[in-house]
Amino acid sequence: MLVNGKPYQTIWPDEHDQGTIRYINQQYLPFRFVIDELHASEDAFIAIREMKVRGAPLIGVTAAFGIYLAALESKDIAHPKNHIMSFAARLLKARPTAINLEKAITRQLDAIRTIEKPYDLICITMKTSLEIMEEEKENCRKIGVNGLPVIIEIAKRKSGNPVNILTHCNAGWLACIDYGTATAPVYLAHDKGIPVHVWVDETRPRNQGSRLTAWELKQHGVPYTVIVDNAGGYLMQSGQVDVVIVGSDRTTKTGYVTNKVGTYLKALAAFDNEIPFYAALPSSSIDPEISDPYKEINIEQRNENEVRYIEAWSGGRLQKIPIMEIDNPVSNYGFDITPPRFITGLITEKGICEASEAGISALFPEYF
Amino acid sequence: MLVNGKPYQTIWPDEHDQGTIRYINQQYLPFRFVIDELHASEDAFIAIREMKVRGAPLIGVTAAFGIYLAALESKDIAHPKNHIMSFAARLLKARPTAINLEKAITRQLDAIRTIEKPYDLICITMKTSLEIMEEEKENCRKIGVNGLPVIIEIAKRKSGNPVNILTHCNAGWLACIDYGTATAPVYLAHDKGIPVHVWVDETRPRNQGSRLTAWELKQHGVPYTVIVDNAGGYLMQSGQVDVVIVGSDRTTKTGYVTNKVGTYLKALAAFDNEIPFYAALPSSSIDPEISDPYKEINIEQRNENEVRYIEAWSGGRLQKIPIMEIDNPVSNYGFDITPPRFITGLITEKGICEASEAGISALFPEYF
Repeated sequence: MLVNGKPYQTIWPDEHDQGTIRYINQQYLPFRFVIDELHASEDAFIAIREMKVRGAPLIGVTAAFGIYLAALESKDIAHPKNHIMSFAARLLKARPTAINLEKAITRQLDAIRTIEKPYDLICITMKTSLEIMEEEKENCRKIGVNGLPVIIEIAKRKSGNPVNILTHCNAGWLACIDYGTATAPVYLAHDKGIPVHVWVDETRPRNQGSRLTAWELKQHGVPYTVIVDNAGGYLMQSGQVDVVIVGSDRTTKTGYVTNKVGTYLKALAAFDNEIPFYAALPSSSIDPEISDPYKEINIEQRNENEVRYIEAWSGGRLQKIPIMEIDNPVSNYGFDITPPRFITGLITEKGICEASEAGISALFPEYF
Repeated sequence: MLVNGKPYQTIWPDEHDQGTIRYINQQYLPFRFVIDELHASEDAFIAIREMKVRGAPLIGVTAAFGIYLAALESKDIAHPKNHIMSFAARLLKARPTAINLEKAITRQLDAIRTIEKPYDLICITMKTSLEIMEEEKENCRKIGVNGLPVIIEIAKRKSGNPVNILTHCNAGWLACIDYGTATAPVYLAHDKGIPVHVWVDETRPRNQGSRLTAWELKQHGVPYTVIVDNAGGYLMQSGQVDVVIVGSDRTTKTGYVTNKVGTYLKALAAFDNEIPFYAALPSSSIDPEISDPYKEINIEQRNENEVRYIEAWSGGRLQKIPIMEIDNPVSNYGFDITPPRFITGLITEKGICEASEAGISALFPEYF
């Protein structure tokens, strides 16, 4: 998508230097747009652990490039495979519960299982990295293509007025390589000249909505308005929302969507106001192992200081500023669970399906 | 309620100086506890307009004392009534749509309608101020008494574990004179030794929950935990909330509750999880004129910079710090509407009633 009028993706190999991977350092957004470089496997580890990159698909691709950089730096050492394997083991723990991290690393290691020559290790890990990167892009593009008719249908009855889409958190291209998941149909609609307008939930406590989603929509020229997380209910009551589209961190095969905390509240309000509610997701987010999400999914409790302090650009640098008494007891669950009865449909790379075992198994029989 | 172990109310006449009204300046809470003084009618105007005092009942009482101070300062001038009347007209516009402001001023002016002597004007306006103040306190105390059985009933089946109460915004004693509305049953239960624990919604954008409600609960010794507004749904899904109690800015006679934006989302989640949801309110918040709240209640759009900037204590002073790109389009509705079908009951000074015309008219026939 566009940044300052120029197309970008979140991560890409440098055209001229095979030892350099370039990426958007998201820590400073929206206050500063910074392109950083990975020159060593350790750089990839740090970028993931310190959340310079975030979002499941982007974490996976960054990890894949990390394995490539490990292959590159092992070309002159005695046992190149050992170096790669030990880095892979360490990288696996850079972020908790990131399924794409594990998948990308496993795929890289599988691809080089029988390979020993340094040059081959380098070529194959780069090839696999590019494959994963292109697949993620292509999945998001297809999610956009499949979700586009939802927006077109609504646009037909809006007689030229913009389709108002509410979204939560950042399920945008910054979380992926390009297009995003929830935002993919929005970008495609906008690029086709269909008038759209996005209500961007601020998304406390880390404000990925007001910081990242607002920034990427502005850069691409999509009209949007930032709101506090409390506001979506009233906007729906007053007829100002046509459709809700969110992402999904994990989807059960019976259609429960685990996503950024607060998603469930918007699903309830959409249902009460008869507004369609979609989750947009690559099928890689489907977890076939879960039958009872409330019992089996461990909802991550994140650092309490995310609630007590806010990150803001002040005095020429990014600071963490206390916004309450810092001895306040605080709780900080990261996700909630939206049951399928509130979900109009799942927008996937293979099409839209009902959030149910029947719907999901028709599109993805491989999970059943 | 207690502050630093000592009982306080939000506003009170100085014991020793008839020309001084003392009040808690809420602008600096929770970072600084500041007692300020009103010495002139203008001070009362400024305290209300600049939100050094806030909350409908407290605004009303401050306005009443403002009229008293106008009477006091007019004792040596030619036409004391003229000074009082012109101040009253100005004071009426200090805050938009604050019904208690208008009620308090009207009551003061009615009480001195036939009075001309400066000394009588002073005595009567002080007497009326104290009457309004005591009535507000007593209404809150009765709301506490009437709501207490709700907490006691839940406590019975919690076998010694605390009753978990979720609240939104600040419907606490800081918004009133003492006790509060939503918090009144909580304080009474706590003072009786019933174990309670309050989930405090941060309440973006002005953070009255994390700043004011958290502070007053801490000062009084009531256990609490601050959460972001997004978190309540998951807490309810996971069985960590026993009851929701909120305030009400305006209640229709058919039981619709207009309250701080985000209230409706919590009502939906409570309903979906079969958790009782109460609004606690003095009957003065009932507006008998409204039949269709969605059409007739004008939901205030507040200053957009409340969303773009956050107030924090930094560098030894209260600062407004940008937390997003400040050219972001922003919307900032202040309230939403909770329909009666999601409300278990209204806790009032006369008892608990159903949120319906039948329920409200049984307790308050005067409105029908």
